[in-house]
Amino acid sequence: MNRRTDSDTPRQPSQIAILRYLRIHGPAARIDIGSATGLSPATVTSLTADLMTQGLVQESQSANAQATGTGNGNGNGNANGNHGATRGRPKVLLDLVPNAACVIGVKITINLIEIALGNFKGEIEHSSEHSINTRDLDEAELIATLIKLIDRFIDKHKNFSARPPVGISIAVQGVCDSNSGEIIWSPALRQRNIALTKALSERFGGIVQMSNDANCIATAISQNTNLHRGGDFAVIMLGYGIGMGLVLNGSVYNGDFGTAAEFGHTKYQPDGPLCNCGRRGCLEAYIGDYAILRDARGIIDLPDANSLHPSEEQMMDLVARARGGNEDLADLFRHAGKVLGYGIANLIALLGPKQIFITGSGARAYDMMEPELMRGLSLAQVPELRRGPEIVHLAWDKDLALQGAIGQSLLRHDENMFQAAVAV
Amino acid sequence: MNRRTDSDTPRQPSQIAILRYLRIHGPAARIDIGSATGLSPATVTSLTADLMTQGLVQESQSANAQATGTGNGNGNGNANGNHGATRGRPKVLLDLVPNAACVIGVKITINLIEIALGNFKGEIEHSSEHSINTRDLDEAELIATLIKLIDRFIDKHKNFSARPPVGISIAVQGVCDSNSGEIIWSPALRQRNIALTKALSERFGGIVQMSNDANCIATAISQNTNLHRGGDFAVIMLGYGIGMGLVLNGSVYNGDFGTAAEFGHTKYQPDGPLCNCGRRGCLEAYIGDYAILRDARGIIDLPDANSLHPSEEQMMDLVARARGGNEDLADLFRHAGKVLGYGIANLIALLGPKQIFITGSGARAYDMMEPELMRGLSLAQVPELRRGPEIVHLAWDKDLALQGAIGQSLLRHDENMFQAAVAV
Repeated sequence: MNRRTDSDTPRQPSQIAILRYLRIHGPAARIDIGSATGLSPATVTSLTADLMTQGLVQESQSANAQATGTGNGNGNGNANGNHGATRGRPKVLLDLVPNAACVIGVKITINLIEIALGNFKGEIEHSSEHSINTRDLDEAELIATLIKLIDRFIDKHKNFSARPPVGISIAVQGVCDSNSGEIIWSPALRQRNIALTKALSERFGGIVQMSNDANCIATAISQNTNLHRGGDFAVIMLGYGIGMGLVLNGSVYNGDFGTAAEFGHTKYQPDGPLCNCGRRGCLEAYIGDYAILRDARGIIDLPDANSLHPSEEQMMDLVARARGGNEDLADLFRHAGKVLGYGIANLIALLGPKQIFITGSGARAYDMMEPELMRGLSLAQVPELRRGPEIVHLAWDKDLALQGAIGQSLLRHDENMFQAAVAV
Repeated sequence: MNRRTDSDTPRQPSQIAILRYLRIHGPAARIDIGSATGLSPATVTSLTADLMTQGLVQESQSANAQATGTGNGNGNGNANGNHGATRGRPKVLLDLVPNAACVIGVKITINLIEIALGNFKGEIEHSSEHSINTRDLDEAELIATLIKLIDRFIDKHKNFSARPPVGISIAVQGVCDSNSGEIIWSPALRQRNIALTKALSERFGGIVQMSNDANCIATAISQNTNLHRGGDFAVIMLGYGIGMGLVLNGSVYNGDFGTAAEFGHTKYQPDGPLCNCGRRGCLEAYIGDYAILRDARGIIDLPDANSLHPSEEQMMDLVARARGGNEDLADLFRHAGKVLGYGIANLIALLGPKQIFITGSGARAYDMMEPELMRGLSLAQVPELRRGPEIVHLAWDKDLALQGAIGQSLLRHDENMFQAAVAV
């Protein structure tokens, strides 16, 4: 079969692949980009030349080539990939140009709005926190508040890049429709069904996207090679509620209706305790902070303040009492662990992901939950169906969601720059 | 940005896309292939010329062009796609060459082994059924039996194609690891963990693959444009046990460990009735034929024969008595429906597929199950989280699994012919 020039063949995904590789792995030699992406040395050279012309990628001298590891000059005889690098001389590395573009990340949680500026490499350059009684805001007030805060923030950091931010990505605690850009339900807000991205997109232009905080954390994990070992994974977020982010075939899975991965609203018992969603027996109604505080009130006397949204101090107090010998309180955390184990068994039966990360502020009591989690998993599922998945407790890092929101914005920006041709 | 010849750019997926389109849609004009695949007229012409040279595709005169519908000669002025077709003259259609390749489909269910020959278009050309006491066979006997049956079958139909079958695809009732080709557990077999594909592949060469019957049915549905409306879907198989096939992003989802979509072993109640898998409270332990028969024995006197594997006659007898006014028996089917509704609620919370098909021999009582299924779904999940999915009862067609096995084999064969370049 002879080959010929074909202007229809999509070249763009290869350029996106190079940008993603550099964003995840940092500065890299052309030959390493080639091995990672499966592109030939000639293609890497030609595509990276394009990317340099566009000001997206730049060369940076590395330390001595011997020190940087794999394949120095071998195997790319016809490539010119290394521009004359020879054994022992500095190897030319390519890196993303930090201020080639910038994006805005926004995180909305109960009574706190955070804003960050991410550079083209995906690093947070600046951030600001705003204590705001989010539950007092109706739809219009929420949108006006966000516009005001983002406006000021962009103005303050306008010198970072020659161009205004190319995207805004919002991480929201709660149930979101990522396809339509609506917040369906959030513990941070009183109103339901808030059409958020549309209003911001009208004001700021460019790509405005939104997803729940667990999805953002999934994106952040997928871009962290220390955590993600390849393959599909789920991240379970313990906290006020129970969230999940799901990465299948390399991307965050939202489902056809934009609301997939609502792990917290899968069931443990059909007639179990009432969940915040309005139905009974959801995992969240056993494991969420609000559920544990609710049950703790039946065991010990607690001050009544802010019972709807337990504070970190309130939850840490319960954990301390449980650790201090209150076995009834400890049983609440153990039972939450067992319920989580049953929930994970269902997740494994349906999807069998390679890794399951457990994180979030609610993982503060993971050590008390873990033995029962493992026992629940083993009670629920035969060994043949729970082969493999690695269950990883990931210490809670509250910047992870913002980091992921910025990552999502940049992924979308890459795609926009190098729109992939439609293919079946 | 200038474009240039790039020998690395993968052309192959476009050829696979054309083959798949023709297999699903039947004979089609070049211009329609172009609109469906997003390829330009010039590319379609060049790629289909290659495919014709390889003997995979052939031209066939259609009826009058006016009668065949869309776009006759318009919009492809620079394409030569239609080889001089003009308004009103017959439009040239392309079709797959039926005997360009053939594949073998095998279906293993309790006491029945079926074998079929599929042509390159995915149609069943010949098939044979063999009543065999499958549960009496150990691993070696099963493999020897299959080899003998397949050998005879191939020999009998050796004149169909110039080349021997390019693949064997086996549909198995039960839990399978599609990655390793092992039958982990099947109600049709006594032994567990049978390494099936390895032995057959050593004997017959070529691609031998295996997956559970529900996955095969999912493949068959995904290739049927009357059923599948695009988007992700699940097919739930009711019968002896409860199976599921899951199609995400266009392909059957097996998960990283090859055993995903085990819907029947997700839970309804943590301490529910004993399931055949050895754990308690699985959906299957309420909905499977064996579960319904087990509970029916507590209600009415039934002959003891073959209680492990209820026959269709036994099950139809229960259905008839339930329809005939035995409300206690009818309640079993209604309760099975409710449990199924709760299970589907979990599926929707995690994945939110666009369509959920319910089929299998166990759907014989779907009319009795359906109202409680819908009630269970509504009890289990708030409307915000069950937006959208269409729940479709699909009348049981026992050839669907074999059809899908053949489809899977051809998909793999296409990929093998036009190996896609590795890309990130």
